[in-house]
Amino acid sequence: MRIAQHKIDDHNQALMAAHQRAFQYLSGEIDHVQDIIQQLVAFQVGIPSWALGTGGTRFGRFPGGGEPRSLEEKIEDVGLLHQLNQSSGAISLHIPWDTANNPAHIKAVAAQNGIRFDAVNSNTFQDQPGQTHSYKFGSLQHVDKAVRQQAIDHNIEVIRQGIAVGSDALTVWLSDGSCFPGQLNFRQAFQRTLEGLREIYAALPDNWKMFVEYKAAEPNFYSTTVGDWGQSYLFSSKLGPKAYTLVDLGHHLPNANIEQIVALLLMEGKLGGFHFNDSKYGDDDLTVGSIKPYQLFLIFNELVEGMDARDMNHATDLGWMIDASHNVKDPLEDLLQSVEAIMISYAQALLVNRKKLLAAQEQNDVVTAQEVLQQAFRTDVRALVAAARLQAGGALNPLALYRAEKVREELIRERGAKTMATGL
Amino acid sequence: MRIAQHKIDDHNQALMAAHQRAFQYLSGEIDHVQDIIQQLVAFQVGIPSWALGTGGTRFGRFPGGGEPRSLEEKIEDVGLLHQLNQSSGAISLHIPWDTANNPAHIKAVAAQNGIRFDAVNSNTFQDQPGQTHSYKFGSLQHVDKAVRQQAIDHNIEVIRQGIAVGSDALTVWLSDGSCFPGQLNFRQAFQRTLEGLREIYAALPDNWKMFVEYKAAEPNFYSTTVGDWGQSYLFSSKLGPKAYTLVDLGHHLPNANIEQIVALLLMEGKLGGFHFNDSKYGDDDLTVGSIKPYQLFLIFNELVEGMDARDMNHATDLGWMIDASHNVKDPLEDLLQSVEAIMISYAQALLVNRKKLLAAQEQNDVVTAQEVLQQAFRTDVRALVAAARLQAGGALNPLALYRAEKVREELIRERGAKTMATGL
Amino acid sequence: MRIAQHKIDDHNQALMAAHQRAFQYLSGEIDHVQDIIQQLVAFQVGIPSWALGTGGTRFGRFPGGGEPRSLEEKIEDVGLLHQLNQSSGAISLHIPWDTANNPAHIKAVAAQNGIRFDAVNSNTFQDQPGQTHSYKFGSLQHVDKAVRQQAIDHNIEVIRQGIAVGSDALTVWLSDGSCFPGQLNFRQAFQRTLEGLREIYAALPDNWKMFVEYKAAEPNFYSTTVGDWGQSYLFSSKLGPKAYTLVDLGHHLPNANIEQIVALLLMEGKLGGFHFNDSKYGDDDLTVGSIKPYQLFLIFNELVEGMDARDMNHATDLGWMIDASHNVKDPLEDLLQSVEAIMISYAQALLVNRKKLLAAQEQNDVVTAQEVLQQAFRTDVRALVAAARLQAGGALNPLALYRAEKVREELIRERGAKTMATGL
Amino acid sequence: MRIAQHKIDDHNQALMAAHQRAFQYLSGEIDHVQDIIQQLVAFQVGIPSWALGTGGTRFGRFPGGGEPRSLEEKIEDVGLLHQLNQSSGAISLHIPWDTANNPAHIKAVAAQNGIRFDAVNSNTFQDQPGQTHSYKFGSLQHVDKAVRQQAIDHNIEVIRQGIAVGSDALTVWLSDGSCFPGQLNFRQAFQRTLEGLREIYAALPDNWKMFVEYKAAEPNFYSTTVGDWGQSYLFSSKLGPKAYTLVDLGHHLPNANIEQIVALLLMEGKLGGFHFNDSKYGDDDLTVGSIKPYQLFLIFNELVEGMDARDMNHATDLGWMIDASHNVKDPLEDLLQSVEAIMISYAQALLVNRKKLLAAQEQNDVVTAQEVLQQAFRTDVRALVAAARLQAGGALNPLALYRAEKVREELIRERGAKTMATGL
Repeated sequence: MRIAQHKIDDHNQALMAAHQRAFQYLSGEIDHVQDIIQQLVAFQVGIPSWALGTGGTRFGRFPGGGEPRSLEEKIEDVGLLHQLNQSSGAISLHIPWDTANNPAHIKAVAAQNGIRFDAVNSNTFQDQPGQTHSYKFGSLQHVDKAVRQQAIDHNIEVIRQGIAVGSDALTVWLSDGSCFPGQLNFRQAFQRTLEGLREIYAALPDNWKMFVEYKAAEPNFYSTTVGDWGQSYLFSSKLGPKAYTLVDLGHHLPNANIEQIVALLLMEGKLGGFHFNDSKYGDDDLTVGSIKPYQLFLIFNELVEGMDARDMNHATDLGWMIDASHNVKDPLEDLLQSVEAIMISYAQALLVNRKKLLAAQEQNDVVTAQEVLQQAFRTDVRALVAAARLQAGGALNPLALYRAEKVREELIRERGAKTMATGL
Repeated sequence: MRIAQHKIDDHNQALMAAHQRAFQYLSGEIDHVQDIIQQLVAFQVGIPSWALGTGGTRFGRFPGGGEPRSLEEKIEDVGLLHQLNQSSGAISLHIPWDTANNPAHIKAVAAQNGIRFDAVNSNTFQDQPGQTHSYKFGSLQHVDKAVRQQAIDHNIEVIRQGIAVGSDALTVWLSDGSCFPGQLNFRQAFQRTLEGLREIYAALPDNWKMFVEYKAAEPNFYSTTVGDWGQSYLFSSKLGPKAYTLVDLGHHLPNANIEQIVALLLMEGKLGGFHFNDSKYGDDDLTVGSIKPYQLFLIFNELVEGMDARDMNHATDLGWMIDASHNVKDPLEDLLQSVEAIMISYAQALLVNRKKLLAAQEQNDVVTAQEVLQQAFRTDVRALVAAARLQAGGALNPLALYRAEKVREELIRERGAKTMATGL
Repeated sequence: MRIAQHKIDDHNQALMAAHQRAFQYLSGEIDHVQDIIQQLVAFQVGIPSWALGTGGTRFGRFPGGGEPRSLEEKIEDVGLLHQLNQSSGAISLHIPWDTANNPAHIKAVAAQNGIRFDAVNSNTFQDQPGQTHSYKFGSLQHVDKAVRQQAIDHNIEVIRQGIAVGSDALTVWLSDGSCFPGQLNFRQAFQRTLEGLREIYAALPDNWKMFVEYKAAEPNFYSTTVGDWGQSYLFSSKLGPKAYTLVDLGHHLPNANIEQIVALLLMEGKLGGFHFNDSKYGDDDLTVGSIKPYQLFLIFNELVEGMDARDMNHATDLGWMIDASHNVKDPLEDLLQSVEAIMISYAQALLVNRKKLLAAQEQNDVVTAQEVLQQAFRTDVRALVAAARLQAGGALNPLALYRAEKVREELIRERGAKTMATGL
Repeated sequence: MRIAQHKIDDHNQALMAAHQRAFQYLSGEIDHVQDIIQQLVAFQVGIPSWALGTGGTRFGRFPGGGEPRSLEEKIEDVGLLHQLNQSSGAISLHIPWDTANNPAHIKAVAAQNGIRFDAVNSNTFQDQPGQTHSYKFGSLQHVDKAVRQQAIDHNIEVIRQGIAVGSDALTVWLSDGSCFPGQLNFRQAFQRTLEGLREIYAALPDNWKMFVEYKAAEPNFYSTTVGDWGQSYLFSSKLGPKAYTLVDLGHHLPNANIEQIVALLLMEGKLGGFHFNDSKYGDDDLTVGSIKPYQLFLIFNELVEGMDARDMNHATDLGWMIDASHNVKDPLEDLLQSVEAIMISYAQALLVNRKKLLAAQEQNDVVTAQEVLQQAFRTDVRALVAAARLQAGGALNPLALYRAEKVREELIRERGAKTMATGL
C-alpha cells in the first residue's frame, strides 16, 4: 500500500500554519537550523522485518490484522513508513524468515519503495522444521562440532543472501548460554564460539561488517556466552577490523550506564551499530523512548560527541536499527513512534552546546554541565524533526496521516484479519 | 507408567549401607531425628500439570519426547514422581488446559496414583480458540465489562471444575497490567479488578481459599495490576477471610527480601501458599534451589518460625506448589530435583536451634544468630530426607532410580517422541 | 543574605524580551495558561535543613565553603532560594541538628524570610554525643524497651519542637533493620515498631500528620523494618487517620514502578508526602530530574490525576519536600535545579489532556495514550514556570542571577571557607 | 594479644572427639582427603588493615571498643586471627592510613606474628589533611594535570612503602567517576586515567603486579571510570603483563554472573585477585558467605577449574583478600566468619568431581551437571576445614575459642573502649 502524494500534500498543507509557527519560534532560539535539518534528513533508521507483525511473549500472542504475508509485503510496509517519515529507508532481514528466493525481484520491490537493505540477521536460536541438528543447547558454543558447523554454514548462507540483495553487514545474535550452573564450561564455550565466528568472519566480503550483539540474559537464564559489552569486545577485537560490537538498549543488567559503554566502544573504534528499543525490567522490547527518553538522549549525546571526535559520518558509519516487539500496539504505529523518538533524541543531541559543555567540564562546573544537557533536552525540537521530514517529502505528522488514511483498515482488507507475520 | 515395587526395593537395598552410614552419623549430630522425619514425611509439594512437559521462551521451544498427551497421563506422571519421592502427592490443574470432561474418572485415576488435587488455576492471560472476547488488554481490569464478565465466568467455571475433582483452592494469577505509560488508569484498573475478584470470591465454597498471586512484570512490561505483595495484600484483605496472598519466588524486583515478605504475610494471617522455583534475572522459572539455595532456606526458616508462632500445621495450612519451566532438562528429572531442594531446605529449617537463635536476637549477638542459621544450612541433611522417603515407601535416590529404570525412554516408547504437553 | 529587589528587577528586565517571546509562543499552544500559572505559583517545595551544606558518602566528604553555621543561617539560605524562585517557601527541620532553643526568635527569622515550617524530622539512626542508649541495633524495633522508650521520647520531643515553630507534621524515617539473616525476628521487629509508633502517634496534635517513610535498604543491608510501601501502608493503616505513607524517590528496589505506588496510595487515602531526589543505583540522592525526568513527570501525572479525583488541593494536601545530597555541586545551586525540575514536571502534568487520555484508555488506544503523555512531556514549559516565578516576584532565571550576584562568594566571605553544616 | 598455645591445645582437645567423628565420616565419603587438606593448609587470605575496626555508613558509625590504635596493633590483630585459623597469614596495608615510618620495625612485628604483607592499597578517594589538591572531582581522571600528578606520586609512594615492607603488588581502586550526566567526558576521563596508570605501572618493580579494581557505582552515582570488568580489562591489557583485574564481589550491577567474569578473566590471563565480601543490594561489604554462599561456591568452582587449566598455584598465583565492613559485628569475629566461609567454599570446589562434570557437559546432561555441583556444595566440609586448621596448628573452632578467651574484653582493657581504627 502506498499513500497518494496529494494526500501527503493535503495533510501537510492543513498542518502548515501551526508547523510554521512552531518552526519560526524554534529557529529564533537555536543556531545552525539548516545544518541540523540536513543531518536529520540524512539520518535513516533500519526497520527489522520481524517487527512488522504483532509480537508476543511466552504467555501468548494477540495478533492484529493486516500483517505482511510475504517479504514483498514487509518491504511494502517499510516503504509506507518511509513514505510517511522519510527516515525509515532501510529494512533489516532475518534469515530464514525472510529468505528471498528471487533476489533480483526483491531488490526491485525494494527499489520501488525507496528502501535499501540494512544488516542481515542469522538465526541459530530456533530450530527450523527439517533442521538436522537442534540448537537446544546452543549453536556456535555447542559441544558437538556438527551443530557448530550447521550454525556456521547457516551464517555463511545468510551472508550469501545478504550479498544477493545488496546488504553489507551481518548481525550475529547468539542466544547461546546456559540455564543452570555447571551446564557449561564458560571458557570452552567462549573458545568454541570464537572459532565459529572466525569461520564466519572469513566468509565476509571485504566491504562487509560483522556485528557481534551481546545480551545479559534470555532465553538462557544463568549465563549468556556473549553476555555483555566486555565479552562482545573480546570477540570483536580477536576477530579483526571488520568485527564490531552491536548495542541493543534492552540487553543490559539493571542500572547499566549504556551511554558510557557507547562512548568507550566508539573510543576503541569497535562500536558497530544499534538496536533501539526501550525497557523497564529486561529485554522488554518496548517502543523507543517510551520509558527512558532522557537515557536515549544521553546515548545520542555520546554518539554525536564520539563520532565527531573520530570524524565519522553520523548517517552511514554506524548501523541504526530498531529492534522492538509490539504486543499491544499496531506495529506500524509503534514503529512511527519509535522513529520519531529517535529523531527527537538525535536532534536534541545535535543541539548540545559542545563548547560550553567542554568548558564546564574543564572547570568541574557540574551544575553548568547539567544545564547544557538539559537545555537541549528540554527544548521542544519536534518542529525541527517535522521540518526535516517536510523537506525530504514526508508528512508533517506521520501518525496522524496514517490514521486519517485508515492504513491498517486497508491492510486488513487487502491481507485479511488473521494473518500472522513471521517473527517472534 | 509405574515402577514395580521390587525395583524400588532393590534400589533401596543396594544403597542401604551407604545410607545407613550417613544417617547414623547425622543422627548422632542432631536431636529429635524422628520428629523431623515425621514432618518431612507429611510434607507434600503440589506438581503443576503444566510443568510435566518441556517449557519454552518467546524465542522458541525445544520439545523433548514422551510428554503426557492427556490429563490422565499428567496424573500418571505425578503418580510416578510421587512413587519415587513420596513428597509429590498432589497435582495442581490449569483450566482450560486440563479440563476434565469426566471428573469421576479423573478422580479415580488420581486415587490409583495416590494423588490429590491441589489448587486449581484459571487462565485469563491467553486467548483460547473460539473465545468471544480477547484478553489482549487484560481480563478483570479490562475497560469493557463484557471482557471482565467473561473472565469472571471463567474463574467460576474453574471453581466448579475444582469442586468436581475435590480441590479446595483457586489460584488467580492475572497477567493484567500495561506495557506503556498512559495505557492504564492504575486506580480504575485496581478497582475493576477488585470488583471482579469479589464476584469470584462470592462463588467460593465455604471451605475454599482464593490465592491472589502477584508478579512484578511480564508479560506486561510497564505495570502489573497485582504487582507486588502490597497490592496482593490490599486485594486479599478487601476480599475477606478466604482470600490470601500467594508468593511465587520469581515474581519480585531484583534484590527483594522475600523471606521478610513471607514473615509479614504470615503475621497478618494472609499468606496462602507458594509457587517454588528459582531465578537469576526475572521470572526465570528455573529448578528450585538451583541458583539461590540459601535464600530458599531463609524462606523456610521464616515459614517454620511463623507457622509455629501461629500453631499452624506445616503440611496442610499453606499451599505448597512448584511453578517452574524446563527448557533444557527432562521435566520429570527437573521436578525431582526441585522437590529434593524443597525437602532439604525444609529439613534444614527444622534443624534451626530456635531457642539459641532467639537468645542471640535478644542480645543483639548478630554473629551467633548467623552461626545458628549457618549451622543448620551447612549440615548435610540429605540422609534425613532420604530416610523420610524410605519410611514413606519411596526410593533412596529417586533420580538415580528414574534413570536406571529408563523412564523417559519408556515414556517415549509409549507416547511418542513428538508429543507436546499443553502449557507454556 | 538577601538579594536587593532592584537586582532581581534588573535581571528580569534583561531577560524579559526573550521570556516574552517564549511565553507568547507557548500561550498560543496551550489552553488555560493563567490557570496553570496560578497552580504553579501556589505550589511550594519544602527545603530540608540538612541539604544546605555539602553532603558526602561513607568514602569521604568534600566540603565547600559558606555553609550555614546555625539554624538562622539555614533559614536565611532557604529564604534566599525562595526569593529567587518563589517556590521554596518552607523549611523542613531535622532534630536534633536544628533544635531551636528560642522558637520565637526562629519563627521571627523565618517570617522575615517568608518561610514556613514544613514537616519536622526525628533522628534515631545516629547516636548523639551523650546519648544514654545506642541505636546501633535499631530504635523502635530494638529488643530493649529502654532504647525504644528513648526513641519514642525523642519523637515526642520533636513534635514538641515542631509545635513551637508552627509545623504540623512529623516525618519518621527509621533506619531500623538488619544486616544479616538471623539478626532480627521480622515479626517481632514489626510489632515493637508498631507499638512505638502508636505511642508517638498518641502524642500528635489533632491537626498534625505523621509520615511513615519507607526505604528498601541502607544503612541496613539485609532487611529494613519499614522497607517498602506495603509495610509503610500496614503501619499507617494500623495507626489511624493521621498516619500516612511518605514516598522518597530513591528508596525503592531497581525497576520499581513508583508512579503506580503513588496512584494506589492516593486511592487508599494514605499518601502523605514526597521526598524528591533522583537516582541511578540506590538512594543516590542526586538532583531532582537529573537522571530520570520522564519518571518524575509520570509520577506528577499520577499525582495530578489522583488528587483531582479526590478533590484535593495540590499545593497543600500533600507534603512536598526535597531530600537530596550534594557531593559535587554547590548545595544552593543544586536546590535551584531540583526545584526547577519539580516545577517543570508539575507544569507538564497539568498540561496533560485528561479527557483525551481517558478516551484513549477507554478504547485501549495505547498509541494515543502515549502520544497524550508525550505531547505534554515534550512541550518546553520553562517559560510557563518562569512566568509563574515572575508573577510571584521571583527571578526569571534564578540560577543565572545566583551566579551573577556571586552569592556563594559572598556567603564564603560572611561565613568562612571551612564551615560545615550539620547533616549527612 | 596472643593466645597461649596450651589454651589452643586444650580447646582442641575438648572438641577432638566430636571432630574426629565428623572427620572420620567425611573421610569415608570423599577421595583424596589428605590432598585436599594440604591445599586448604596452603591457602591464605589477606586481611585488610582497614577491616580491623568497626565500619560505618554515611548515616553513622557505631564504634565498638578495643580497636587497634596503630599499625603494630593491626598486625597483632591479624596475627591473632592467624593464630586461631592459620588461614589469615597476610595483611593488606592501606596508605596513608597505615604508613610505616619504621619499616624494619614493622616487618619485625609482622614476622613475630607470622604475617606477610599482601597487596598495598593507595587512596585517592579522600582528601587527607594538608593535601595540596582535592580529589573531589577525581584523581587520575582529573582535568587538572596537577591533581593527576599528585595521585600518580601518591601511588608511586605507596609502591615505595610496599617495597619497604616486602609487598609485591599494588591495588589501585579509583573512585573516579561522575555524579551527573555531562559532568565528565567519558573518553577523555578514560584516557587521562590510562595515562596516569601508565606512569604508576612504570614505577613497579619487576616482580610486582598491579591490580586494577573496578566498581559499578559509589561514591560516584552516575558513572565510574573503572566501572566494570570490561573497562578494567581494557586498562590492564593496555598497561601490560604486570597489570591485572581485581574482582570485588560487591562491585557489580544487580544479577551479574560473577563466576563467568572470573572464568573469562582467567582465560585471558588477566585475573589478578579478589576482594571477598557479600552483598544483597550494592557494595554492602557484608561478611563473606552470609547472603549468597552458593554464588561464592560457584566462583571458587570456576577458580579451581580455571587455575588448574593454566597450571596455576591456587595459593600463590592470585591475590586473595577480604574487603568487608563491620557495622554490627565485632570486626575480628566477622573476619573469622568470613575466612571460614571462604575455606568452606574452596574445600567444596576442590570436591567437585571434574571428570563427571566434564562428561555431563559433553553430553548436555544438565541435570547431572547440576547434581555434580550440588553434591559438592551440599557436603558438610566443615570437618575438612577444621582438620586443615588443626594440622597447621590452629584451633578447631576459632570463633568459640575467641569468645572463650574473651579476646574482645581483653583488647578493650588494653586499648580502651573508645578507640577508633583508621579506615571507613
